[in-house]
Amino acid sequence: MKFGIFGGARVGRADSLHDSYGYRDFIDYVLAAEKIGFEGIFLVEHHFTGQGQLSSSLNLLSYLAARTTRIRLGTGVVVLPWHNPVLLAEQVATLDVLSGGRVDLGIGRGYRKEEFDAFCVPMGEAQERFAECFDVLLKSWASDARFTHSGKRWQYKDIMVEPAPIQRPHPPIWMAGGSPQGIAYIASQNYNLLLDQLANIDQVRERVGAYLDGLEKIGKPRDATRVGIARSITIVKTEAERQKAIERRKETFKRIGAIAYRPPGAAPQGHDDIDLAGDDSALMGTPQEIVDRINVLAEAGAGYILLTMASITPESVQQFAEEILPHVKNAGPAFDSVPALQAVAA
Amino acid sequence: MKFGIFGGARVGRADSLHDSYGYRDFIDYVLAAEKIGFEGIFLVEHHFTGQGQLSSSLNLLSYLAARTTRIRLGTGVVVLPWHNPVLLAEQVATLDVLSGGRVDLGIGRGYRKEEFDAFCVPMGEAQERFAECFDVLLKSWASDARFTHSGKRWQYKDIMVEPAPIQRPHPPIWMAGGSPQGIAYIASQNYNLLLDQLANIDQVRERVGAYLDGLEKIGKPRDATRVGIARSITIVKTEAERQKAIERRKETFKRIGAIAYRPPGAAPQGHDDIDLAGDDSALMGTPQEIVDRINVLAEAGAGYILLTMASITPESVQQFAEEILPHVKNAGPAFDSVPALQAVAA
Repeated sequence: MKFGIFGGARVGRADSLHDSYGYRDFIDYVLAAEKIGFEGIFLVEHHFTGQGQLSSSLNLLSYLAARTTRIRLGTGVVVLPWHNPVLLAEQVATLDVLSGGRVDLGIGRGYRKEEFDAFCVPMGEAQERFAECFDVLLKSWASDARFTHSGKRWQYKDIMVEPAPIQRPHPPIWMAGGSPQGIAYIASQNYNLLLDQLANIDQVRERVGAYLDGLEKIGKPRDATRVGIARSITIVKTEAERQKAIERRKETFKRIGAIAYRPPGAAPQGHDDIDLAGDDSALMGTPQEIVDRINVLAEAGAGYILLTMASITPESVQQFAEEILPHVKNAGPAFDSVPALQAVAA
Repeated sequence: MKFGIFGGARVGRADSLHDSYGYRDFIDYVLAAEKIGFEGIFLVEHHFTGQGQLSSSLNLLSYLAARTTRIRLGTGVVVLPWHNPVLLAEQVATLDVLSGGRVDLGIGRGYRKEEFDAFCVPMGEAQERFAECFDVLLKSWASDARFTHSGKRWQYKDIMVEPAPIQRPHPPIWMAGGSPQGIAYIASQNYNLLLDQLANIDQVRERVGAYLDGLEKIGKPRDATRVGIARSITIVKTEAERQKAIERRKETFKRIGAIAYRPPGAAPQGHDDIDLAGDDSALMGTPQEIVDRINVLAEAGAGYILLTMASITPESVQQFAEEILPHVKNAGPAFDSVPALQAVAA
């Protein structure tokens, strides 16, 4: 079982946010995660939220490449329809060179109606724009000879993209999937799979299984660490903390659910009466409850859990290392000896 | 008198280049430059050269933001017509936050016919594309309220660009200029000026003077450190080294001259019989000859010299610190005590 981080730093425009505090804090969080043996991080990319969400994930990762030595540096995800494919290929390859081949490239077609509207791109074109961009990315990384691309949105003549990534022909590609067809496609291409934080344990079991079946079909090992399962985690010590965590969970459902799952063009839904009774997707509760749920996830086939911690601090990472990790079955050799708080805080 | 670095790392696709050697070496060179008190670096951005020239300058600068504490992190230049203005605004602002406000943003409209052809952008549209992109950049950095842009090339609806840069409203803007009109415009907008490495000393005197006059017109101090003067530097110890340096200089004239100065669409010129007799733009010769030329530059009004060293190594920086700097008049307080080689190499 591997663990990673899913999320992003926040720095907004408002005066209260307007210093590097959000980034500094997030950077310390990542450094702590590397120290205790986490496998990787996956940074979001969002635009124009007004909430200071990370917009330039590849720049923050380039900075982190210099501050870390081992942890893998991922995106979760880069939204291809916003990007000039060749400039993106160069940025990813440059990051791969700077980090010594530690890039995990999550890509997606975008899901937020608000972002499509803001970029003045019809959401109906998402798939077509994604496909063309991805096609150019793959050619850019793989071609040692010059090539020409004459597409619907992008044209390049006689180009050679430099540098080449360290990982050849390109860094591992990660894609979010949920439907049987989507997962079968991702496995058939030998890409890695990201599962969202709202998928419940039955869905995790089903999706991991479908993905591993797909890998087997193309002659690849059934490697569950190639599925990154996003999970929010909130350790509570009192009943009041639990109630607060449940309220926050409802907010998450409301926000992600409303943004992600409504059909393009549909009005936002309220989700005012969200019932969390059947929600076993969050890692929420006492340390023992969380350990139990991680062990259930492991039994469901999970190999790589990507945590979004309630508090983005080194102390949260340390608390996880001290109160949860020692009790997780098969936590793996990376966690054989967990450094003490002083070492992490240093 | 301030000194800086102008140039870029090289990592190509070929096996011989295909490791991080070029970047690692360049990174060590920048770290040495910071240690001996250099003011800043300006990184080039080029695409598809087949020579491994740096393509993602903002990513390498993001990495360097983590490895340095004081040196300013500049571009020389970002070619605006290639970039989605909002994504670029986000990247620059993110770098400014990560570096604690150390960005010097050089921007340009592009000058290489080959690059315009490769991006399938008519060179005749360079100015128009530059102007629209720059307009969006300025709005993106300055606007704390949402705004809409309906331009010829780019459309955005109701956006707010995050994060805001640390330097408000935006990092210092640097633009290359040579003609009287160009320099007058740059000064009138309170931007900083970049002079190219082929400008001779008479041209430097004239252009610095014109820029300072322009600053004075808008009520700003006549600050010559706001003009970055690119200079190649080659310290020679023997007659054979001098001949080699002259040959390399001819190559530079051939390459930059052919690329930059021929009219769009014209065939490359040979420049086989370049006469360097009147060329006083390079810092080439013995340490004493170079000191003399820097002092002449200083008398011509130079306040900030951006060096492109013949060898991109910490040792080159150290040689400059030991053999040149102590003899330069008004080298400034940053150089009062030059650390020993061991300190720089450490």
